[in-house]
Amino acid sequence: MAGNRRGARVSQPLFHMVSGAPEPVAPFSHAVEVDGWVFLTGQMPTLPDDDTAPLPEGIEAQTRRVMDNLVIVLRGIGLGVRHVVSVRVYLTRFEQDYAPMNDVYRGYFSPDRLPARTCVGVTGLARGALVEIDCVARRESVMIGGGTSEV
Amino acid sequence: MAGNRRGARVSQPLFHMVSGAPEPVAPFSHAVEVDGWVFLTGQMPTLPDDDTAPLPEGIEAQTRRVMDNLVIVLRGIGLGVRHVVSVRVYLTRFEQDYAPMNDVYRGYFSPDRLPARTCVGVTGLARGALVEIDCVARRESVMIGGGTSEV
Amino acid sequence: MAGNRRGARVSQPLFHMVSGAPEPVAPFSHAVEVDGWVFLTGQMPTLPDDDTAPLPEGIEAQTRRVMDNLVIVLRGIGLGVRHVVSVRVYLTRFEQDYAPMNDVYRGYFSPDRLPARTCVGVTGLARGALVEIDCVARRESVMIGGGTSEV
Repeated sequence: MAGNRRGARVSQPLFHMVSGAPEPVAPFSHAVEVDGWVFLTGQMPTLPDDDTAPLPEGIEAQTRRVMDNLVIVLRGIGLGVRHVVSVRVYLTRFEQDYAPMNDVYRGYFSPDRLPARTCVGVTGLARGALVEIDCVARRESVMIGGGTSEV
Repeated sequence: MAGNRRGARVSQPLFHMVSGAPEPVAPFSHAVEVDGWVFLTGQMPTLPDDDTAPLPEGIEAQTRRVMDNLVIVLRGIGLGVRHVVSVRVYLTRFEQDYAPMNDVYRGYFSPDRLPARTCVGVTGLARGALVEIDCVARRESVMIGGGTSEV
Repeated sequence: MAGNRRGARVSQPLFHMVSGAPEPVAPFSHAVEVDGWVFLTGQMPTLPDDDTAPLPEGIEAQTRRVMDNLVIVLRGIGLGVRHVVSVRVYLTRFEQDYAPMNDVYRGYFSPDRLPARTCVGVTGLARGALVEIDCVARRESVMIGGGTSEV
């Protein structure tokens, strides 16, 4: 992104691939950023250092792994969970897993800074996962028209 | 959000909890706003004044309740359906409920200002609801670099 | 969108209906745009010139048709797949169709410019489709505070 003249803004998306995050299992970037808005690909409960290892067992462990993977991606681009504004949670066993997923999920956020969220039950997720979570984050300070300020 | 110097913008998210809207049944804010972009948590067909009351019966009544709940949240932060730009609709009985949901949904919007929308069938929703709807809205005027103008 | 005074920005959403794109089967615009952010309604594998014709057979053909329909909408508003930053893919036969959908999908993007993406299995889609895809795109240059520059 670079300001090119008074009153105009040219924005080029950044396609982030984060070292240390789980290898993409399909054609996507870990996150894409434009103008300080960051769209994070849905993370799965795969182990970041061995994508082929069995998934953690149970919804609590899988939710924790998914959230930790999102944190790895966020940190890799200089952000944290405090920058997350909107979240979607997908569960393959909705009735059974909704409450325990919420219990783990809640622990990652400050109670007065809870993102907007939608959670639905789905028929299937990659890798046979029980849970997938994607989100939108917002960098606190972005450059406009020539200035710059990173957070 | 506050401009801090020429060419830079610092954006702090607002985590909106709206009095009069249904009590959150899980860890989320009713809506989160940054730079005039507002992400609304998916609303359920719960009664705003009694979250434990039985849900309205049938897809028409539940769609109306969900849309009315979204309107409560939007109004609580000074917005209306005319500010909605993007919507997602989740149905637990897709084949059966898609057409009647559309009939009710359509009535909330001006025909020349229909939001972008995606509607899919899901295996489960909180509270055993038939329908959940979330959306993104845009405040018409936002402050940049020191000025301010609310709508 | 028009700048109204120093430091403020007034943004009016554009509700795009694109000639040549499939007729909307429900109450939505093809795409809605504010400040260079474009929200595209989920496209179905319907034929753009005959919405009542049978859908293409199989996930490969349907994925191709969906992506081609998205391209029609993008081109209709002066954009292309290179402007897409975030994608959601919905499949009605997740296990069976995830891999072949990926193979077709991948071909539409430059390998170093892959959008963030989430893909989930759903219980139903309009028109009995196997796949629906929606996305968010970003115009490269937008007017702020009086200047203008289109890409």
